[in-house]
Amino acid sequence: MHRLDVDLGERSYPILIGSGLLIDSSQFEQYIRGKQVLVVTNETIAPLYLKTVLDGLKAFSKVDVVELPDGEAFKTLDTVNRVFDSLLENRHDRGTTIVALGGGVIGDMSGFAAACYQRGVDFVQVPTTLLSQVDSSVGGKTGVNHPLGKNMIGAFYQPQLVLIDIDTLNTLPDRELSAGIAEVIKYGMICDPAFFGWLEENMDLLLARDPQALAYAVERSCADKAAVVAEDERESGRRAILNFGHTFGHAIEAVQGYGKWLHGEAVAAGMVMAAELSCLRGWIGKSEVERLRALLTKASLPQQSPEDMTVDDYLNAMSVDKKVQDGKLRLVLLRALGDAQIVSDTPKDQLVEALRACGAQ
Amino acid sequence: MHRLDVDLGERSYPILIGSGLLIDSSQFEQYIRGKQVLVVTNETIAPLYLKTVLDGLKAFSKVDVVELPDGEAFKTLDTVNRVFDSLLENRHDRGTTIVALGGGVIGDMSGFAAACYQRGVDFVQVPTTLLSQVDSSVGGKTGVNHPLGKNMIGAFYQPQLVLIDIDTLNTLPDRELSAGIAEVIKYGMICDPAFFGWLEENMDLLLARDPQALAYAVERSCADKAAVVAEDERESGRRAILNFGHTFGHAIEAVQGYGKWLHGEAVAAGMVMAAELSCLRGWIGKSEVERLRALLTKASLPQQSPEDMTVDDYLNAMSVDKKVQDGKLRLVLLRALGDAQIVSDTPKDQLVEALRACGAQ
Repeated sequence: MHRLDVDLGERSYPILIGSGLLIDSSQFEQYIRGKQVLVVTNETIAPLYLKTVLDGLKAFSKVDVVELPDGEAFKTLDTVNRVFDSLLENRHDRGTTIVALGGGVIGDMSGFAAACYQRGVDFVQVPTTLLSQVDSSVGGKTGVNHPLGKNMIGAFYQPQLVLIDIDTLNTLPDRELSAGIAEVIKYGMICDPAFFGWLEENMDLLLARDPQALAYAVERSCADKAAVVAEDERESGRRAILNFGHTFGHAIEAVQGYGKWLHGEAVAAGMVMAAELSCLRGWIGKSEVERLRALLTKASLPQQSPEDMTVDDYLNAMSVDKKVQDGKLRLVLLRALGDAQIVSDTPKDQLVEALRACGAQ
Repeated sequence: MHRLDVDLGERSYPILIGSGLLIDSSQFEQYIRGKQVLVVTNETIAPLYLKTVLDGLKAFSKVDVVELPDGEAFKTLDTVNRVFDSLLENRHDRGTTIVALGGGVIGDMSGFAAACYQRGVDFVQVPTTLLSQVDSSVGGKTGVNHPLGKNMIGAFYQPQLVLIDIDTLNTLPDRELSAGIAEVIKYGMICDPAFFGWLEENMDLLLARDPQALAYAVERSCADKAAVVAEDERESGRRAILNFGHTFGHAIEAVQGYGKWLHGEAVAAGMVMAAELSCLRGWIGKSEVERLRALLTKASLPQQSPEDMTVDDYLNAMSVDKKVQDGKLRLVLLRALGDAQIVSDTPKDQLVEALRACGAQ
């Protein structure tokens, strides 16, 4: 088992990464302080891992379960309200702990419910998808979507523990594995060029679900993210580099309707758009854009816009994105592979050209 | 104008108290950092003060207004969602400031919306009722009710500024003025016996809305509360003394249906229940309970339970109250007038006797 500590002062917490962790109840017993636990999961994950987790929670006197519908389309305030209903119907008090068992949607909603229930209760994450293991495990971003924008309602809220059992990736569909790899590739692009090189060498092992390769990729991704977050917990500055590809990706998700493209797929195409824009600015070369495109293709990820999206679709969608400050579009570009920078002076014609280079109509 | 600083480290903020503050735009210009403002108010307050506030906000390039229905019954997640709708429809970004113009319900919902919108935007409170001026101005508690419990969903979130214009109390109905006085009396009871004496002397002036007396009572209440909150921002210990009378009060509100009894009225009766219990424990004498009852009566506040509530109604309602830790009922009692203490070892028969002494069936 590997242990990585996310250093956020009094809000610090460990990420434990390994095989067979779900079966080992000692972690829960060490990190959950009260006697009440609510497990939040979904209808896809429950049949696979709920029994194992409940076995691991036998030491707690009150363990309830709420099973939510699966999918980004259900990442809403109404669904979070079902968690509140369950907490109140089962009389959970301020000493309760919410355990999120599932992917990013479950983690984001459970974390937001933990942040808001009685103004804050304890929270443990058990992410079961690669995307949630390498993304939502670190950073404390929780929340839900609004019909007018993704992740518009939420809180920064840190868990007491993140427990990553690599074995859960064995049941992950190929398409979701690839979507998670998109975020892994992102860390290489924005701050870890050596890791990008490792990914070029080892993509076949990841796709074959080699446990050592997966554990290494998860740990290095979490470490890369933790280093960025520790500098800037509430995203007032540098942390925004983690949004590389996301402003474009959110536009794709919003216009296509949440859930049609997976988040990681939208981010993959969005990273190419940001890379093309960095190239047009003269910061990175065509060869780096090509390396990114080649690696995404190897990982079965898109590197072009959805065919039916127009340049205007992107421009409209991006102007309500969180990354807009006082009317200026802020984007994360690359000065070099592994060196991200935030800019807010992108000429509109360059933006349009980059979108067209990725197939936007 | 009086200025009181609430000392919470990097989350510190000033409370400005005086007459004619709403007309003076300089405070808004000094404390609002961005160019976007959303004023959240309700249908009762808007005709009275919205125009004045909008005049004061002329320096800002984008000022939108959302007008919510009035009353505790609307303090729900659905109503807060209308604030999110308005923020997104009007394309407010992370640099926006939410201005809460109204009483405690508006303040609690606006603060919660500010805490959650894009994971946190700036927030200014302009409380227009006595209750909100002496209670929600200090402490950062924001949130909404759930059908199964009051204030069960929320966040600790501090404003950038609280602007208290005493003149707004001139339009407050008598019943609401009295309800606010209940919380003022509470500060005397829990931590400020000299102030309790001042209230016994000056209740007539307060009821006659003497501006000097009101400004003094507001400032002293805020100072008393700020001293308690500064010690314990997130209510892990001592801060809970501010809930004196509230566990009983919440039971009254929950069983009667939110809005039938005003919050301050429920707290008034709840304080007598807590005082009776303190007396049964041998901590305060009958004479102190009588002084409280007499002062409440002078302030036109209830000092007995609603006639139709039974002891079982209270016991059931209190077991889902936030003040319960691991199944034990925590209550705030008085060792002496002005000296509150948290206990979790109340014998059930004493509890029942105290409730009966206040007319519970």
